[in-house]
Amino acid sequence: MSAQHDFYGVISPVLTPFGEAGSPDADRFLAHSKWLLADGCTGLAPFGTTGEANSLGVEERMRLLEALVSGGIDPKLLMPGTGLCALSDTVTVTRHAVEQGCGGVMTLPPFYYKAVSDDGLFAYYSELIERVGDDRLRIYLYHIPPVAQVGLSVDLVGRLIKAYPDTVVGLKDSSGDWSNTKVLLDAYPGFTVFPGSEIFLLDGMRNGAAGCITATGNVNARMIRNVYDNWQTDQADDLQAEITAVRMAIQARPMIPMLKAIVAHFNNDPGWLKLRAPFLQMDSAEAKAGIEELTQQFGFELKAA
Amino acid sequence: MSAQHDFYGVISPVLTPFGEAGSPDADRFLAHSKWLLADGCTGLAPFGTTGEANSLGVEERMRLLEALVSGGIDPKLLMPGTGLCALSDTVTVTRHAVEQGCGGVMTLPPFYYKAVSDDGLFAYYSELIERVGDDRLRIYLYHIPPVAQVGLSVDLVGRLIKAYPDTVVGLKDSSGDWSNTKVLLDAYPGFTVFPGSEIFLLDGMRNGAAGCITATGNVNARMIRNVYDNWQTDQADDLQAEITAVRMAIQARPMIPMLKAIVAHFNNDPGWLKLRAPFLQMDSAEAKAGIEELTQQFGFELKAA
Repeated sequence: MSAQHDFYGVISPVLTPFGEAGSPDADRFLAHSKWLLADGCTGLAPFGTTGEANSLGVEERMRLLEALVSGGIDPKLLMPGTGLCALSDTVTVTRHAVEQGCGGVMTLPPFYYKAVSDDGLFAYYSELIERVGDDRLRIYLYHIPPVAQVGLSVDLVGRLIKAYPDTVVGLKDSSGDWSNTKVLLDAYPGFTVFPGSEIFLLDGMRNGAAGCITATGNVNARMIRNVYDNWQTDQADDLQAEITAVRMAIQARPMIPMLKAIVAHFNNDPGWLKLRAPFLQMDSAEAKAGIEELTQQFGFELKAA
Repeated sequence: MSAQHDFYGVISPVLTPFGEAGSPDADRFLAHSKWLLADGCTGLAPFGTTGEANSLGVEERMRLLEALVSGGIDPKLLMPGTGLCALSDTVTVTRHAVEQGCGGVMTLPPFYYKAVSDDGLFAYYSELIERVGDDRLRIYLYHIPPVAQVGLSVDLVGRLIKAYPDTVVGLKDSSGDWSNTKVLLDAYPGFTVFPGSEIFLLDGMRNGAAGCITATGNVNARMIRNVYDNWQTDQADDLQAEITAVRMAIQARPMIPMLKAIVAHFNNDPGWLKLRAPFLQMDSAEAKAGIEELTQQFGFELKAA
């Protein structure tokens, strides 16, 4: 077994900027990724739900990943999303991520067909692992039933760990259900579990989580990292309360457009505002109200790295 | 505006066979497609939900479509599914279908992100049409909320027809909700509406539908076509009752594995049994029970063309 990077700490999915013609903007993507690592992120998860990954084509994902690696980001810090609906496409982007040297991949279950069986999902991941056929592959399962609708049961996770202990090494739990995260942490010690929101960071750390993978890492990594670094101190609960409050303020509005509006505002770069259909750019008055709320209530700003 | 084929009658999505190594089997796919047209289908919709389309990769879809066209099937009779999650992939396969000369395409809304706005979906289809930029393009919207979760509201359909009257020409309604189909038929005369099941065929014809696009066309096209051909006769209700009964018997079991088991059985070709993960092949005893029920209750058989 080759030595691989172990992910921990504060991992941010990466917002995907789009250029004038609607194509992904690799330059802004790289610059933002570098800034996130400078701002406190210990790893990056390009092509997550927040990154509008499922609005990106197979080729677009691969070209963007190459832009990060060739742009100087250590691929061991990257955990790109590679779970598409079709096994063949999933194999293509997963193999590509391994070949780029990525420390891991974050892989959704196939999500078009609903009410599929655990046996069918087991077969899917099993065939993925066998077809990629590379012992450098590290899979972090991506459990996000509010969006994907198709989730990963605690039992299925256990079966996959047992069958592929060196490959199925972790999970991002974006169920929003702390009790599910807790069950996973208790059931599979040594398995790397990340809550999908910093709201559960301190609870997670106290129960054996590895950190968190969170959308708001795009704009608030430094404060979240501070909780991670100080979770065993007396300040931990106060620090957690603060990042929870910021998170709640951000997610009170549509998350992805709001995050893009924040990045655009503090970088004075309206190029960041664009989303890809079916998402639309946020109304500018709504964006302004959201940003004012954050600055006035929390003194919020994005500091240059 | 170029003269295009107008779809009508009984259109079958096409089951996708998989070979030993798990890849789509283009030879069986072509042979089955030809048989369907000989058996009474007036058109084919490869890469629908029944065809496990969303378990097929972008490249796999394009190669399979080329196999049908180069294999001698009139592309004007083809309405391939082209709706993927990512606009860029949807543009790729839609453009390819137009270039292959297909009479139309059937296009799902983007289905990963949930609770998206009608404005966002309008922008998606609008951008698709503009990026493909070909006046041969004919889009049949694909409304299947039980699976895709993201549906197309009656209002959105009307906005698309109004904006692109020569391009957005029809819709397959797989909501399973006759009242939705009826509202569409009443609201947009001249727009081509296909119920997504033969259960609604006669009701559809009596209210201006163009026929039906139905999974069970894969095994029962001849009887369904008979209802279509005789819908204005005195026998219509009896014929409809019979195809409804057959449909109910088939859909009492998992639809796609059951259809594949039927095709495998009557062609004496176990190569048809395989599904792609996350679907699994049906248990052989269950398949046998389903086939016995069909043969004993309905004298059901697949006749060679």
